[in-house]
Amino acid sequence: MDDKEISKAVVRRMPRYYRYLEELKSRGVERISSSELSDMMHVTASQIRQDLNNFGGFGQQGYGYNVDFLYDEIGKILGISSIHTMILVGVGNLGHAITNYIKFSAKNFKIIGLFDVNPALIGQTVSGEKIQHYDEIPKFLETHNVDIAILTIPKDDAQKVCDDIVKCGVKAFWNFTHIDLNVPKDVVVENVHLFDSLMLLSYHREEVLRESGNGS
Amino acid sequence: MDDKEISKAVVRRMPRYYRYLEELKSRGVERISSSELSDMMHVTASQIRQDLNNFGGFGQQGYGYNVDFLYDEIGKILGISSIHTMILVGVGNLGHAITNYIKFSAKNFKIIGLFDVNPALIGQTVSGEKIQHYDEIPKFLETHNVDIAILTIPKDDAQKVCDDIVKCGVKAFWNFTHIDLNVPKDVVVENVHLFDSLMLLSYHREEVLRESGNGS
Repeated sequence: MDDKEISKAVVRRMPRYYRYLEELKSRGVERISSSELSDMMHVTASQIRQDLNNFGGFGQQGYGYNVDFLYDEIGKILGISSIHTMILVGVGNLGHAITNYIKFSAKNFKIIGLFDVNPALIGQTVSGEKIQHYDEIPKFLETHNVDIAILTIPKDDAQKVCDDIVKCGVKAFWNFTHIDLNVPKDVVVENVHLFDSLMLLSYHREEVLRESGNGS
Repeated sequence: MDDKEISKAVVRRMPRYYRYLEELKSRGVERISSSELSDMMHVTASQIRQDLNNFGGFGQQGYGYNVDFLYDEIGKILGISSIHTMILVGVGNLGHAITNYIKFSAKNFKIIGLFDVNPALIGQTVSGEKIQHYDEIPKFLETHNVDIAILTIPKDDAQKVCDDIVKCGVKAFWNFTHIDLNVPKDVVVENVHLFDSLMLLSYHREEVLRESGNGS
């Protein structure tokens, strides 16, 4: 298990490879060269070879990459070839959307508990899953193995909710709230900060307008 | 307008500064030193000074940063101090959630048109905005100034929809679909690839489990 350290930049590019390989698979493509993949992905072929070498290569000279094999291997590396159980806290609009998204689009990720504090929501069903009261979480986590907690709650509650759930032993958070969470070292957080993304879009749009002379 | 080039990494960190300053503002904090900000943000004070120097500094020796002023300046840099008009295409669960999110949480971003192809949705209202048929988009864009198009549609339609809207002159896309969009050079795309994010979370979780000895 003493893997050589893989750079964060390489890791961050892996999901994108996975997406393109999935697309190729669905089109029935069995093998692909790094230069063909390079054309599709707008990344240099040498970058692709380097990236994939980090994980042991997978390519064969003159043959290219076996799509199925590479897809499976990257899936294993990313840890998504096994089932991940999740709970979601905060079943507002976004929580609703994410629950449906996971149900219909995220193979191997299963939401097994939905929680909220709003009495009007308790007992309602989303994607076949009943919404339970937030206070039930500790009991739920005692009896269920949960890999990931999804937080789609207002930012003012986020840190406290996170602390509560960390105490119950959950080691991974998918954080849609507007804040950065403080967690112990052995807990991981992946943020989807929508407004950050929107601000970056705004910035890059201004930049492009400026370059094309419309903004000066 | 001949700004010095600002590195992508610095630009990517700006929304985060903006978020923390917003938080400080809402708590009534008027000024803050780079070391206090450093403690909050878990970034070194020297990194903070360097980052903000890219945009002309804003700090004063022995005084720190004026929170209001810095907040406003970063807002201007990010281009979010002026109103941005948006349309959203694909009013499923996610489109619904994003529409509500923009309405209630994204100051200065206004959705002025919702579009879908599903006849059952046309004429319905989300956040006070009526859903129109997708085919109305060209006419709509002739008569309305739209800065950003939000795509919350299935991936198989995404490139075609993007091409259609680019033809009508929209220069910025907030892309929630599962694919990367091909666009002309003067068009910008900011992606929210949910599944990429989930895969990274899965990867980092495995990594942490491995380090703590649970996964080996």
